[in-house]
Amino acid sequence: MDLNIDLNSDLGESLGVWRMGDDAAMLDIVSSANVACGFHAGDPAGILRTLRQAKERGVAIGAHVAYRDLVGFGRRNMDVDSADLRADVIYQIGALKGLAAAAGTGVRYVKPHGALYNTIAHDERQARDVIAAIREIDAGLVLVALAGSPLLGWAEAAGLRVVAEAFADRAYTPQGTLVSRREPGAVLHDAADVAERMLRLANEGTVTAIDGSVVRIRADSVCVHGDSPGAVEMARRVRERLVQAGVTIRPFTFDLAEAATA
Amino acid sequence: MDLNIDLNSDLGESLGVWRMGDDAAMLDIVSSANVACGFHAGDPAGILRTLRQAKERGVAIGAHVAYRDLVGFGRRNMDVDSADLRADVIYQIGALKGLAAAAGTGVRYVKPHGALYNTIAHDERQARDVIAAIREIDAGLVLVALAGSPLLGWAEAAGLRVVAEAFADRAYTPQGTLVSRREPGAVLHDAADVAERMLRLANEGTVTAIDGSVVRIRADSVCVHGDSPGAVEMARRVRERLVQAGVTIRPFTFDLAEAATA
Amino acid sequence: MDLNIDLNSDLGESLGVWRMGDDAAMLDIVSSANVACGFHAGDPAGILRTLRQAKERGVAIGAHVAYRDLVGFGRRNMDVDSADLRADVIYQIGALKGLAAAAGTGVRYVKPHGALYNTIAHDERQARDVIAAIREIDAGLVLVALAGSPLLGWAEAAGLRVVAEAFADRAYTPQGTLVSRREPGAVLHDAADVAERMLRLANEGTVTAIDGSVVRIRADSVCVHGDSPGAVEMARRVRERLVQAGVTIRPFTFDLAEAATA
Amino acid sequence: MDLNIDLNSDLGESLGVWRMGDDAAMLDIVSSANVACGFHAGDPAGILRTLRQAKERGVAIGAHVAYRDLVGFGRRNMDVDSADLRADVIYQIGALKGLAAAAGTGVRYVKPHGALYNTIAHDERQARDVIAAIREIDAGLVLVALAGSPLLGWAEAAGLRVVAEAFADRAYTPQGTLVSRREPGAVLHDAADVAERMLRLANEGTVTAIDGSVVRIRADSVCVHGDSPGAVEMARRVRERLVQAGVTIRPFTFDLAEAATA
Repeated sequence: MDLNIDLNSDLGESLGVWRMGDDAAMLDIVSSANVACGFHAGDPAGILRTLRQAKERGVAIGAHVAYRDLVGFGRRNMDVDSADLRADVIYQIGALKGLAAAAGTGVRYVKPHGALYNTIAHDERQARDVIAAIREIDAGLVLVALAGSPLLGWAEAAGLRVVAEAFADRAYTPQGTLVSRREPGAVLHDAADVAERMLRLANEGTVTAIDGSVVRIRADSVCVHGDSPGAVEMARRVRERLVQAGVTIRPFTFDLAEAATA
Repeated sequence: MDLNIDLNSDLGESLGVWRMGDDAAMLDIVSSANVACGFHAGDPAGILRTLRQAKERGVAIGAHVAYRDLVGFGRRNMDVDSADLRADVIYQIGALKGLAAAAGTGVRYVKPHGALYNTIAHDERQARDVIAAIREIDAGLVLVALAGSPLLGWAEAAGLRVVAEAFADRAYTPQGTLVSRREPGAVLHDAADVAERMLRLANEGTVTAIDGSVVRIRADSVCVHGDSPGAVEMARRVRERLVQAGVTIRPFTFDLAEAATA
Repeated sequence: MDLNIDLNSDLGESLGVWRMGDDAAMLDIVSSANVACGFHAGDPAGILRTLRQAKERGVAIGAHVAYRDLVGFGRRNMDVDSADLRADVIYQIGALKGLAAAAGTGVRYVKPHGALYNTIAHDERQARDVIAAIREIDAGLVLVALAGSPLLGWAEAAGLRVVAEAFADRAYTPQGTLVSRREPGAVLHDAADVAERMLRLANEGTVTAIDGSVVRIRADSVCVHGDSPGAVEMARRVRERLVQAGVTIRPFTFDLAEAATA
Repeated sequence: MDLNIDLNSDLGESLGVWRMGDDAAMLDIVSSANVACGFHAGDPAGILRTLRQAKERGVAIGAHVAYRDLVGFGRRNMDVDSADLRADVIYQIGALKGLAAAAGTGVRYVKPHGALYNTIAHDERQARDVIAAIREIDAGLVLVALAGSPLLGWAEAAGLRVVAEAFADRAYTPQGTLVSRREPGAVLHDAADVAERMLRLANEGTVTAIDGSVVRIRADSVCVHGDSPGAVEMARRVRERLVQAGVTIRPFTFDLAEAATA
């Protein structure tokens, strides 16, 4: 029996003199890096530094595409029309591919950020625009999306490979959806508890929902945060608990052939 | 005897609702399109439209990389350090490659824009940064640079293929350099005269300098402008005069094999 | 009997090299200029040019505040939180006040632009943020808002003076609201017809709705567009028809004292 | 005998989610706050928070105007023409005045930032543009400039009031100019030493130059930094040493009447 799981984190989110998170520390923890592409965060030189650090550690690279909104960090909903949204996504993926090539690596997947992530989980028009954009630039890219969201089905039906992700520090409803951040208890703060939850998710494919019931979550990647010293420490605890229990942390794969060459 | 020359023009320079030039008209005239990459001009959706129009007409694509300066249209000198300049150039080329892939075409060359173009023609530090950036993302890209500038030698020594360009509507000194725009007579306005000059350049490799002397210019591409109705008309006259005289307008090539597959 | 009305138009919407509209022509037609503040359009030097032209002609100045979205021209809905929206509006009004002072004039009113205009016509949270912002920077500023919208009442209740505006080239429903742009016939193109409609609005306070019924519209200002040669011509026709019929075109006023010193 | 000096610091330099420095801590130390205006740093909501904190503590406000360059933090030289530079400076001062009004305070002075600060210390063309801009928006504003720079004379000749500033943590040449950051020893790191130097500057108007000689510096304000915990601690030490020695820390003034009402 060979258990493995992917840990991903949002990186490359500094902007010029403004630092965010500790990318080097997180790259020692995760197997996949969602790297900012300049629209919500990330200047080219900073992105390139993060990509080089990821390359050194064999961490897989994803394009963390977003609405064009630096001041709002891509967290504000924007009603972007299809022509703009498609081209914006292609532009960002292309830019990251260029920087990744310069760093001697490549872009493996796309994980939308912030408001775009949340919107396309359920808004079919914008979802189809993002899917089309990915297919137009590189149909081999994988889409990482919220476990349980209709986006996963739309993307697969359009021919994309998809990976469902869970969030380590978030509470789930009995229906397997995220508890809204506006609700009490939505965000988990106990690192040991979070680590045990993720071990159970890796082992059994379930988490304990906020009401105490057990809910099944199909997720091949787990998102951990790194934007504060406490967040880095929690991510490290998750990794250590999984490794200690014999779970391999490695980038998601789709078949043995791909796994062998990863 | 088979004479040919490349005509290039700066395109894709609209920004959202703000239009610049008539890309469709210019794409019927030129063989190479220097397409804005979003730093001095160009939003992704507009760039993609231009790339699709270029693809339909078989026009070759160049990345018109620039300093990050929308308000100044990339025409203001900026003292960008090497880490930023290299990454900025890679980012822009990558973004354009992504959009070009979505349009079913590719990026063939890089032609820096505005202040960056003028600066690297003689500033060795910034020139080496641009050269390194091109090599890091794709060593097969060609650099289009000012005929007679030291940049051509620096780039060739670094292993890049280069193409020297002349400007159709600019006067030359007896030394083969451009007459500064601050001097009277620097910019030519007579379309018929400009067309004859470019025919002579294609035929004999010479132009009449501002003092009446004849000066040799080694140029494989000629830049024509399209940012006003008058400019489009002048570009059309240049094309028609060359075609009428039996000169083939086509993208620059480096060898027969490449020409055959172009 | 002394009939008068205010004509307003969106101006100062160029951006660096990118031109939009013919501000000088429009400033000969209108009595109030809604001047861009840099968030959806307008660079400081261009805004200052427009303000100086307005000052020469005695045209009143309004701050055309918007969401921060150059690429989308402020036409995309954005879910901006209250702290940001208030401060963004204050920032823009302050910047325009500074430029207006440099031009020897002042800012008389605020007219939100594009998506912000449409949103606050009915979204109470964002409406209250804009109202609060205006009061915090200068409670003497007037708010120009869509005739018939609840915003007018919210603003008056909060102590702001308000002016309702009608749109010269738009069709109205029998309820006195604008026909949605997605409906056929929403935008009027016949300059003579538009001019007659506005004369009737000035004389009788009514327009013919899209179903042929007559609807009362309380409007003290009429918005005319200037973003194309056809639009400028229509605006000129509206002005000429009104003047010919004895209607005075002048900035809105609130009392005789203010009118006397205008 | 009544000794007093002004301590100033660069504040309001966060940008959305990206934090910089500890404004609240620094506002307990300094008497004048150079507040970012959005061109090199600062989003409107963050600027407004800093202004409110400054108002609570009676700290004077200066407009920290800069080139438009977020990614480069305004530290890159830019060749901005006069029309743009003037309007850019007016725009920024106006925006800050608006936010200051909303915070119940006002803008007292202008201190250019970064590359603009360094450039206008000696570049007469850009210096005159900044001077003209200040006079056009509000001739009562004070210009804070590098002690010993020709800018002080140009501004006074143009009718502006000026304040010369020294830098607490920088070494001086025997000629009273700053030792270039490229030279060893240019930046001082010993807080106790820096505090003693500033006490001597306040008491005697002299500092020990890098070669050990004593040099006279005419400065009415001292710049302290707050962009790291160590910087805040050094600033606090400077303040405490001055206060302990009986020097009053207060905003610069020009006459007794102004001092009495400050």
